[in-house]
Amino acid sequence: MTAASVADVVERLRLALDGRVDTDPACLEAARADKSGHAASGRPVAIVHAASVADVQETLRIAHATGTPVVTRGAGTGLAGGANAGAGEIVLSVRDMDRILEVRPDDLIAVVEPGILNADLNRALADDGLWWAPDPASREISTVGGNIATGAGGLLCAKYGVVRDAVLGVELVLADGRLLRLGHRSVKGVTGLDLTSLVIGSEGTLGVIVSATLKLRRVVAGRARTLTASFPDVRRAAGAAAAVTASGVQPAIMELMDAASLAAVHRLLDLPAPEAGAAQLTIQTDGPAASEEAESIAATLEASGGTVRLAQSDAEAELLWRIRRSMHPAMETLGTALIEDVSVPRSALPEMFDEIARIEHAYGLVIPTVCHAGDGNLHPNFIVEGPDVPERVWEAAGELFQAALRLGGTLTGEHGVGVLKRRWLEDELGPDQWELQRQITRVFDPAGILNPGKVFAP
Amino acid sequence: MTAASVADVVERLRLALDGRVDTDPACLEAARADKSGHAASGRPVAIVHAASVADVQETLRIAHATGTPVVTRGAGTGLAGGANAGAGEIVLSVRDMDRILEVRPDDLIAVVEPGILNADLNRALADDGLWWAPDPASREISTVGGNIATGAGGLLCAKYGVVRDAVLGVELVLADGRLLRLGHRSVKGVTGLDLTSLVIGSEGTLGVIVSATLKLRRVVAGRARTLTASFPDVRRAAGAAAAVTASGVQPAIMELMDAASLAAVHRLLDLPAPEAGAAQLTIQTDGPAASEEAESIAATLEASGGTVRLAQSDAEAELLWRIRRSMHPAMETLGTALIEDVSVPRSALPEMFDEIARIEHAYGLVIPTVCHAGDGNLHPNFIVEGPDVPERVWEAAGELFQAALRLGGTLTGEHGVGVLKRRWLEDELGPDQWELQRQITRVFDPAGILNPGKVFAP
Repeated sequence: MTAASVADVVERLRLALDGRVDTDPACLEAARADKSGHAASGRPVAIVHAASVADVQETLRIAHATGTPVVTRGAGTGLAGGANAGAGEIVLSVRDMDRILEVRPDDLIAVVEPGILNADLNRALADDGLWWAPDPASREISTVGGNIATGAGGLLCAKYGVVRDAVLGVELVLADGRLLRLGHRSVKGVTGLDLTSLVIGSEGTLGVIVSATLKLRRVVAGRARTLTASFPDVRRAAGAAAAVTASGVQPAIMELMDAASLAAVHRLLDLPAPEAGAAQLTIQTDGPAASEEAESIAATLEASGGTVRLAQSDAEAELLWRIRRSMHPAMETLGTALIEDVSVPRSALPEMFDEIARIEHAYGLVIPTVCHAGDGNLHPNFIVEGPDVPERVWEAAGELFQAALRLGGTLTGEHGVGVLKRRWLEDELGPDQWELQRQITRVFDPAGILNPGKVFAP
Repeated sequence: MTAASVADVVERLRLALDGRVDTDPACLEAARADKSGHAASGRPVAIVHAASVADVQETLRIAHATGTPVVTRGAGTGLAGGANAGAGEIVLSVRDMDRILEVRPDDLIAVVEPGILNADLNRALADDGLWWAPDPASREISTVGGNIATGAGGLLCAKYGVVRDAVLGVELVLADGRLLRLGHRSVKGVTGLDLTSLVIGSEGTLGVIVSATLKLRRVVAGRARTLTASFPDVRRAAGAAAAVTASGVQPAIMELMDAASLAAVHRLLDLPAPEAGAAQLTIQTDGPAASEEAESIAATLEASGGTVRLAQSDAEAELLWRIRRSMHPAMETLGTALIEDVSVPRSALPEMFDEIARIEHAYGLVIPTVCHAGDGNLHPNFIVEGPDVPERVWEAAGELFQAALRLGGTLTGEHGVGVLKRRWLEDELGPDQWELQRQITRVFDPAGILNPGKVFAP
């Protein structure tokens, strides 16, 4: 885009959306990056802080008329670069659209705008004894719209489902500004194609989500129980997690930390160093049978060679969870963490950790890994210096992705493809499906102005 | 298609798929219709009884090369005419592809071919203490592939989810014979667009499902409890059902029969006639707290004016369920039943029954209605004589659809659009979404040979 046309686009935006168009250099700079550490090349032309559906439609009409790319953005907490905006692009921020439009306890649904933070929504729903289950670790700082756009998971997915289980419908503004109402408000509904599910995880390539009809749950009654189990090595910890799943008792949360993660957290928190090589499971049960389930799981873990500690108070449970929650701060003390996100069938967890060990050895790297062991989603961390990931680290990551695919797994469990994983997308989908998916994006956005270069970029 | 080209197509099929091509007139005649009573015009050219993925691919290659329409068919138990085949069309039956390819109790998944009957699958899974939750009333006679293609629901959906919650991936043969592997085997997976969900409920318009990776549950422990409650009129029964949902206790099953349904069943079973106007709820609770939940629900129902009977034995429970299960046989004694399938938010059930009463009055019809009251899915039955539905009945049905849409509901909760509801599809989707969905089908099937005239026919 030439400088003249940039000025023209900004002028048209200003005329139509007075007071909502932001060209502050620091704000434009911030919109280049997300929590992955990756930043787009160049600086976007403007940020539109949309306050209404009409603002979103107007922005897209102008973008469409001028052929200007649009990057939709919530709170900027993504981990795959999916909402990073660069040269020549309009940033369409929906962060200010943060109202709860409707809560229906009798129908177990809520209708919300996309910019509300996950945790803010859940605090509001708690007044009615309700909650929305998706619980990404970022829930205090990430938006519901972003959670839907990436299909963001979390810790509770094995027991309480993923995003597609928790969204009944969305309102979507197309690339040309038209508004579509997708999905339904009823429990059941099979009228036409399920475009709601298609939009979940589409990472800004199909349209802009301007509201969502969420399927709620009632707050789980009873006191949750927490236990940890230490194992001499990660393979045994992974095997024990698989044994818990196979035993038929469903934990609400089951988290695994490998030796490098555990050691880094203990250093950060000034705790005594764990035994060399030791890995740990942290598990929570909930609901009316929480205590019986915790005891049954403890027995399974001990039979698998674990040293078990069952928290006897909420304060003790909090202490145990603090270790898991300190993972990201601990990684930040080591450098810039490229957080990977492969997911495998639960039975394949031990083999996946073997693969990680093999790759560490082959590349001379340490890859601290945490894992949502209840659902098979691993987050191997590649520690790098500065914002750029060296090609050799990408090669190691590429081997990791291939290993996950060989084990029946997938490239990304909950972070999305964005820009950081697009070069491996075809490995998983195959060329025919890759091309078919790209053609579907063109049905929604024939001119290709929505988040170009993300997900499907060649 | 000319007679010569029909002969050519059949000849090519015979050459490629020796012994699997069926032109028996009685079989062709049967493939014209499904359980809706509706039949396609004319007779299909041949039935291919596919036994393998390769058979499906070969059939589609020939169809593609010759421009011949293909209607994929399972057990023919649909209720919307979606698998009815007419003049010039190839019937691609996948009923013989009925193997269970894999069961993984540790990962809670199974991989199956599409032609296996839902009940046969669940009998096999029971050996491992597992089940697949979708439970259409047709489960003894309908296939898993058909359940997925229509998004078929059932009685347990409010507690145990709908089809999209229970399918992780499918293998799909495209219109030109290429094979795609969609979805994943892990609990989480957000790589690319969610085409698995797009295929669920697509009614044969996107491709042919040749295998499915199913998400399983463990068999629910404990003894289920059953109770019924009688109410003086259907509005109070519907209000009581909404009160149960609002109370926060989740029944496994909650079924409502209106006065006309109840009276017809009592006549069929030679039971004493119910009081005039009386409607009935039949409810099941399950899991470890089944008894406490049944008692809590009984209290809610009594507070709503119901006369409650809590079964004290499995034999008594069976007796109570027999009444609900006799609904379809009772309708068949009255004539040909056009079974409608609207779904509304649960709180709107009383108003929806008001609308049905209004339409009955306006059209001088009796519309016996049963309802999955736990999820808001109603099946109003229009009783007609012979295979053709009079236009006046369609007008009444059209008013019913419009009423459901006004109440925030949808045209079809679990049966699909097929041919019988296609003329109302645009009323729900709007013209822009209708056209966009049709364009998506063209990405999968550019020549439009897959189930033409179904769902999106103008």
